Amino acid sequence: MNKMILAMGAAGIAALTSAPAFAQEAAEAVPAAEVVSPGTAYIFNTLLFLLGGFLVMWMAAGFAMLEAGLVRSKNVSTQCIKNIGLYSIAGLMFWIIGYNIAYPHGGEASSALFGMAGTIYPMQAVGAADTGTGYSVASDWFFQMVFCATTASIVSGTVAERIKIMPFFIFVTLLTAIIYPVVVSWEWGTGYLDTEWGFSDFAGSTLVHSTGGWAALVGALIIGPRLGRYAGGKVNVFPGSSIPLATLGTFVLWLGWFGFNGASQLAMGTVGDVSDVSKIFVNTNMAAAGGVVVAIILTQLRYKKADVTMALNGALAGLVSITAEPLAPTVGQSILIGGIGGAIVVFTVPLLDKLKIDDVVGAIPVHLIAGIWGTLIVAWTGDATFTGQLVGVLLTAVWVSAASAIVWLALKYTIGVRPSEEDEMAGMDITEIGVEAYPEFSSKM
Amino acid sequence: MNKMILAMGAAGIAALTSAPAFAQEAAEAVPAAEVVSPGTAYIFNTLLFLLGGFLVMWMAAGFAMLEAGLVRSKNVSTQCIKNIGLYSIAGLMFWIIGYNIAYPHGGEASSALFGMAGTIYPMQAVGAADTGTGYSVASDWFFQMVFCATTASIVSGTVAERIKIMPFFIFVTLLTAIIYPVVVSWEWGTGYLDTEWGFSDFAGSTLVHSTGGWAALVGALIIGPRLGRYAGGKVNVFPGSSIPLATLGTFVLWLGWFGFNGASQLAMGTVGDVSDVSKIFVNTNMAAAGGVVVAIILTQLRYKKADVTMALNGALAGLVSITAEPLAPTVGQSILIGGIGGAIVVFTVPLLDKLKIDDVVGAIPVHLIAGIWGTLIVAWTGDATFTGQLVGVLLTAVWVSAASAIVWLALKYTIGVRPSEEDEMAGMDITEIGVEAYPEFSSKM
Amino acid sequence: MNKMILAMGAAGIAALTSAPAFAQEAAEAVPAAEVVSPGTAYIFNTLLFLLGGFLVMWMAAGFAMLEAGLVRSKNVSTQCIKNIGLYSIAGLMFWIIGYNIAYPHGGEASSALFGMAGTIYPMQAVGAADTGTGYSVASDWFFQMVFCATTASIVSGTVAERIKIMPFFIFVTLLTAIIYPVVVSWEWGTGYLDTEWGFSDFAGSTLVHSTGGWAALVGALIIGPRLGRYAGGKVNVFPGSSIPLATLGTFVLWLGWFGFNGASQLAMGTVGDVSDVSKIFVNTNMAAAGGVVVAIILTQLRYKKADVTMALNGALAGLVSITAEPLAPTVGQSILIGGIGGAIVVFTVPLLDKLKIDDVVGAIPVHLIAGIWGTLIVAWTGDATFTGQLVGVLLTAVWVSAASAIVWLALKYTIGVRPSEEDEMAGMDITEIGVEAYPEFSSKM
Repeated sequence: MNKMILAMGAAGIAALTSAPAFAQEAAEAVPAAEVVSPGTAYIFNTLLFLLGGFLVMWMAAGFAMLEAGLVRSKNVSTQCIKNIGLYSIAGLMFWIIGYNIAYPHGGEASSALFGMAGTIYPMQAVGAADTGTGYSVASDWFFQMVFCATTASIVSGTVAERIKIMPFFIFVTLLTAIIYPVVVSWEWGTGYLDTEWGFSDFAGSTLVHSTGGWAALVGALIIGPRLGRYAGGKVNVFPGSSIPLATLGTFVLWLGWFGFNGASQLAMGTVGDVSDVSKIFVNTNMAAAGGVVVAIILTQLRYKKADVTMALNGALAGLVSITAEPLAPTVGQSILIGGIGGAIVVFTVPLLDKLKIDDVVGAIPVHLIAGIWGTLIVAWTGDATFTGQLVGVLLTAVWVSAASAIVWLALKYTIGVRPSEEDEMAGMDITEIGVEAYPEFSSKM
Repeated sequence: MNKMILAMGAAGIAALTSAPAFAQEAAEAVPAAEVVSPGTAYIFNTLLFLLGGFLVMWMAAGFAMLEAGLVRSKNVSTQCIKNIGLYSIAGLMFWIIGYNIAYPHGGEASSALFGMAGTIYPMQAVGAADTGTGYSVASDWFFQMVFCATTASIVSGTVAERIKIMPFFIFVTLLTAIIYPVVVSWEWGTGYLDTEWGFSDFAGSTLVHSTGGWAALVGALIIGPRLGRYAGGKVNVFPGSSIPLATLGTFVLWLGWFGFNGASQLAMGTVGDVSDVSKIFVNTNMAAAGGVVVAIILTQLRYKKADVTMALNGALAGLVSITAEPLAPTVGQSILIGGIGGAIVVFTVPLLDKLKIDDVVGAIPVHLIAGIWGTLIVAWTGDATFTGQLVGVLLTAVWVSAASAIVWLALKYTIGVRPSEEDEMAGMDITEIGVEAYPEFSSKM
Repeated sequence: MNKMILAMGAAGIAALTSAPAFAQEAAEAVPAAEVVSPGTAYIFNTLLFLLGGFLVMWMAAGFAMLEAGLVRSKNVSTQCIKNIGLYSIAGLMFWIIGYNIAYPHGGEASSALFGMAGTIYPMQAVGAADTGTGYSVASDWFFQMVFCATTASIVSGTVAERIKIMPFFIFVTLLTAIIYPVVVSWEWGTGYLDTEWGFSDFAGSTLVHSTGGWAALVGALIIGPRLGRYAGGKVNVFPGSSIPLATLGTFVLWLGWFGFNGASQLAMGTVGDVSDVSKIFVNTNMAAAGGVVVAIILTQLRYKKADVTMALNGALAGLVSITAEPLAPTVGQSILIGGIGGAIVVFTVPLLDKLKIDDVVGAIPVHLIAGIWGTLIVAWTGDATFTGQLVGVLLTAVWVSAASAIVWLALKYTIGVRPSEEDEMAGMDITEIGVEAYPEFSSKM
């Protein structure tokens, strides 16, 4: 109590002078474990979830623009409806069942692989606070929900231009209701990977990005490449319809990532927490910067051109790479981790083409491969073992791949996933949507 | 005082352990009426207005992109200047006179239909705080101002492509200086509807959205449809020039709506308030999601296509529907309310065309019809009577329609509102602006 | 101590009633120097830097869209990679050396023109707070870094369409590592201009905007105009490829400017500070609104058209004009200052063309001329002398012009800055990037 009173006294002196605190260094020394009242901390913690939540929600727009820019104009309207639809479905599914699968153990450690807390997530009454948690449960739910939507966004880019809308939405429904929440339960839900392996994934290099990546990869394999993509024994480039929209989408994602990683600190009600959020902002930014610069340098050296789509994907790969541990690394380590993420993109994009895996926007290199890289390197920078991280990567790979394959195959052999060849050539904007994206602009092609 | 000391003690214990509060459930139980000092609460309340304010300001960009995407390319530059111009005019008018009309009674209940507090809104001195209010008056003014601008944004979409710039700006001037502020005074200004009818409109389904909607509807009727729109006895579709820009605009509006509804709680300086803001975020998001999913399902069933513009407007209609009461409903109710908003769009867009009312972007279904729906349903979910809500809807209808009609007609019979037929066919980008939106892209049409 | 206890008591009473503070005016009177504990203030101050930081980071996207919209389609991909590249390089350079040049004196006043605190900026350990500062140093670094990036963004617009990527990136490297940080050190680094001249530049009309403007102007002079721009003795207009993208970029910049100016208050841990941030929001917004309205009126009067690019640049010029002092002016003064900024754009854009200075996006009128105007007028509205402001403007002019000229000339006479004439005619998207921005849209030209 004495300590508290003293701190309060200091507070009084500092505050009464009515100047910005840091102008007077002597008076305002803040003990690391400074007195912030639990009510104030509650408001700060909740605010962090709300800020992080709306920034990550904004990433849905980023994926929409990135993908709208990287598909051909005949499929742009389709990509737009897929993105706003998947974000909506993710919210509904995560509320109906997803959250309860993701957090089944009520905060207790558990080795169970599957569990469920209940059905339909309840919110507390109006005006009531969550006195046992230190933050509003609604704010936390909102923040978790937008992560769920992000996972689905990753899939839509890879399988673009040759999957019909309804099978895509059905896949998203199952991904966000079950497949993704199970992965979350193992780690953030204090489940198997957390309890048994000390697996560490701060903001989701594996839980979000690799999960989306595996679902996308299996989808690409089962659905097959776009018509003509690998015809004639060579890789035919289908250039994206709008580079500025792809650039806009990348900047939106970069911005949103401050919420994605920063708010994954889960608290800013202490001076230590808010300082850590700040460090996460810096490291996240610098990893992305490293990814961009490395991608530009490598494409310039390799192709004598600075490939803009590689630069954009370099930024995203840098961001994914740092996501598993954005707090512990130094700034220098962050640049290195992100830079290697950028290199991964430059080298694995052509590799996928050699394997005739048609990934329209490069989501597999960015989210899956860089996600694995980012997860494993935590053994170096963070508090985890290489074995533990590898087990997390592999378990996620097995579960997501198997579950996704079942869903994709069931769709393929029931309602079908692809449009007819004629429809695919015409573009799904005409056949599935009835609204052209750019009806007035004539095509060179 | 004892209670406070005890709370402080608890705070001390919790904070001194220096871990995120919610990691230790026992120590940090937060009483719902927890001690947050008035200075801290002041900062939180002000911060909520600033956050909400910049998010709603961003909606101006959302409307600009939505409308730029839904008009034909020959009017895109015009739509851009109209949107940045109306946002600017709204700010100036709300400062010169609008705020003083909107809040004439100094917080006292009043049954007066018209009043005015003064002219030109004063701000306090630098470094001074507003000790009687609990928040900075400048932050509140900023937040109220962006709502005023939103009202004007709604009009610009409906009457696009056939109204000249200067009469449009004159209408905006009067809408934001007088017409909208009078409506606000009746409710948020503790006036007639609030005092006499217990009318309830949390964030403006009626005050903002229906007001904009009535002004737009009357404008559409007086100005008439675009040339050729209903020629030959049928509805001729004029497809929008860029679906990705319309999609971007919708995402921007969705994002901004967290500020629109969330910050309309007007305070986050208590744990109860910030928890309520969180619930508003969730309900707002889920109503929009409901609107999207219903619009997609209905268009798929009705037209065998999933219409992307209907999906976008479904999101917006869901958002408008929940705006009159985003806090009291359960999540399930919110999805239902928003979903019905989505259905309203699907059914009323063709209806307007039958009536030969030419609404370029669908703002009347989205903002007016869904706004009425959202306002009336508060009788079910919130603290209001059906009669009271109906009176609010009708009074707004009468006032805004009459006042708007006077202005539109005065413009029509003085300086004129429409370009010549030749100019309208050529597009206003050439005749009014002199800058084409896409000068290098040739047209199919 | 008594005063503090009393305040705490008031806090208790207010908070225990659990209603929004401002609902009860009597109980919650907040003394201007109210008690906010140093820990709470630390969190608020840090949060302001984070909010301001991500808003200013978002301005990088705004510049990218503005410039992508205002160049011809054959150079849009190039402009995109330049913008994401320059933002990345700025972060790396400001970390490696820039910050240490910008803040060399450790908060002590100094008359030195050059100095350096160290190399590679250190961040504190995980979980540690910066007990001597009152805010997280990482959050401050992040906020300063995005300002550095903004400076580089200004240059890219002016010299667009005729500078190769690599020389541009080399210039950005030196600008962000040395040229800009030196200017910062004189003022925000408590150096020469601050100490000797009482120079005042709240958020950077000179430090950021004029610095970018001088670097751009010298670049435009040394690199020369685009091929054909002034051929045949007349000014040939090269219209921008997408007005909606330019409009989007302007709205993004306007939004980001709330962070740029608002968070330059550097603290919101007192009621006085957060009230000042609010006033800055209002003044910033109203200066921009003034710029828009004046630009529209003047172009309508002068050219009988309301030029949309002038309206956009009017907004930006209004924002730049108010940036040197966004707090002290009244709202009316802010509108006036911003409105004159708008007029500056309308009159100096044609002037530059007369001088055959080819500024692709109008960055010199907006950032340099309006930046000088905004800086000088502080002698009227703020706490500075005309002489002091003029010395700051001139010293910046001499240093930035000289240093930039050396770098531009060195690049010109070594690796070269311009593409070959054939490459420039073909567009750099093909020759430098290999990725067309709009590959499917045929050109009228």
